[in-house]
Amino acid sequence: MPTPTSKDLPPPIETRVTKLFNIKYPIIQAGMVWTSGANLAIASANAGILGLVGAGSMTPELLREEIQKTRERARGAWGVNLPVFNRYAEEFAKIIIEEKVPVVFTSGGSPKKFTPVFKAAGGLVAHVTPNPSLALKCEEAGVDAVVVEGFEAGGHDGRDELTTMVLLPQARDLVQIPLIAAGGIATGRQMAAAFALGAEAVQVGSRFAASAEATCHENFKQAVVKAGEADTFLTLKKMMPVRILKNPFFQKVQEAEDRGASVEELSEILGRGRARRGMLEGDVEEGELEIGQVAGMIHEILPVSEIVRRMVNEFLATLSALAPRAPARP
Amino acid sequence: MPTPTSKDLPPPIETRVTKLFNIKYPIIQAGMVWTSGANLAIASANAGILGLVGAGSMTPELLREEIQKTRERARGAWGVNLPVFNRYAEEFAKIIIEEKVPVVFTSGGSPKKFTPVFKAAGGLVAHVTPNPSLALKCEEAGVDAVVVEGFEAGGHDGRDELTTMVLLPQARDLVQIPLIAAGGIATGRQMAAAFALGAEAVQVGSRFAASAEATCHENFKQAVVKAGEADTFLTLKKMMPVRILKNPFFQKVQEAEDRGASVEELSEILGRGRARRGMLEGDVEEGELEIGQVAGMIHEILPVSEIVRRMVNEFLATLSALAPRAPARP
Repeated sequence: MPTPTSKDLPPPIETRVTKLFNIKYPIIQAGMVWTSGANLAIASANAGILGLVGAGSMTPELLREEIQKTRERARGAWGVNLPVFNRYAEEFAKIIIEEKVPVVFTSGGSPKKFTPVFKAAGGLVAHVTPNPSLALKCEEAGVDAVVVEGFEAGGHDGRDELTTMVLLPQARDLVQIPLIAAGGIATGRQMAAAFALGAEAVQVGSRFAASAEATCHENFKQAVVKAGEADTFLTLKKMMPVRILKNPFFQKVQEAEDRGASVEELSEILGRGRARRGMLEGDVEEGELEIGQVAGMIHEILPVSEIVRRMVNEFLATLSALAPRAPARP
Repeated sequence: MPTPTSKDLPPPIETRVTKLFNIKYPIIQAGMVWTSGANLAIASANAGILGLVGAGSMTPELLREEIQKTRERARGAWGVNLPVFNRYAEEFAKIIIEEKVPVVFTSGGSPKKFTPVFKAAGGLVAHVTPNPSLALKCEEAGVDAVVVEGFEAGGHDGRDELTTMVLLPQARDLVQIPLIAAGGIATGRQMAAAFALGAEAVQVGSRFAASAEATCHENFKQAVVKAGEADTFLTLKKMMPVRILKNPFFQKVQEAEDRGASVEELSEILGRGRARRGMLEGDVEEGELEIGQVAGMIHEILPVSEIVRRMVNEFLATLSALAPRAPARP
């Protein structure tokens, strides 16, 4: 199917998730370390999707600045992604409440940790999880929506390696609240597949990392664009499993892992600041480049608005192509 | 969505794959070692899908008997799955040609090896591959259809760990001939997702392993039914990566792999006949139990005809649920 290139804006799509966050299209721009600063969140909000400022790689001071900048310039829905395990998590939470951030996506750790706090402050909360049973725990913790993230996703993934195809329908069978699919979604066809599996929105990371407005280094964006079909891998499984681009740094880590290196040795190879070095400073040889398996499907850097337009148009075209097979509803 | 339980047979579904194999529904019953003997292939053929006798675990003599039995009793389409790397591969090929098997699915190794031979003998050929670029090689080798198999699949998987969600649309962009999706598909929702991604049929293994007619041991079927959401894992990566159920045998192998065991040591732990011991003889503790990640979604042993009916009904119900979002086609 050719990618639709029409400059016409697709019509709004309504789901429980678009109503929850008051967005035009059921797409969430994922929080990504060194990549989703205010500029990306603003561009996303202005394109009719939910933009997320990723707190993970920020200091508390920077997060506050980025929140204030986003509020000032976003003409749509926005929020913050808060990794629960982050060393500044408590400080981030305080800032999020003080700054009255309307939407918080928490990830890693227990959904019980911050959900009650943010809900009490009047915010909307979603939690990211890699397992169906944990999706149920999210619902029980009172979140408004659950992001289920498959093995395909870039960055830190779950240890059970459940793929989006297998994870999502099982979560759908367990919970009542809306599901947002993440992992392996960069196109409208993949978005349509996620809807078939029970999602009411998709969270997209990698595709937006290679956008004009992403706040990561240009070298990193180019590395994503150049990536082939098999150029990412889930590694560092003895520490926190992370999906990264295959580069010389990855080769070193993987070679150590293959010979059974200890956590201590792996930590030493990793060192400090690897992700910053790769994604912010642009050292694509020795830096850690977190990106999803869909990197092989990303062939150019585009503005966020154009990514959204193409994705939604392809989503609708895919549904139209499937529709003639659907029997009339009773 | 509740599983449809209507006893009514769903209407036929036409795609290039159903026309190619002359089947009623776009479903292929996968060839599976110790599991897909003549009985399973016959039940599949009689349920309106393509049934495959899996040569992988057979002797040449047994394969010939199973082919003859299948031809005698199948009232629909059937064929043989031939693993190209098998030690008997040449003998199997000779028997397949002598017995005029109408359809051959080859897997592992190069599609160039047997495709010309079987095509010259008048058969239809599909090849199973885990990479988009290799799907293109299959097309160039002259196959009639390509099976693209994701990381979720049971048994031997590719080294690049591409999931169905990421693999399938990339293959769709590269080849013109029909694609059959494999890996992570046990339900009609997953089948609908595969169609959204560009498949014109699905190859289903695990769900049929837990069928009444599968020729594996009852203990293995029960182990599949009991499996939870995270009870399979891809292991033995230094040898031929294989997805198996987590049992005491798996724990031994995985522990060795984690400490960097050599191929020699891993081979010794594996020993000979592990798969036979698990899947045919029913030793679910010390045997190798090859099954897909969807095992966690399989909760009962059912007849093949009922599995097909439920899957197709759910597929159609899923398309009907998506259809109202589809804009009218221009």
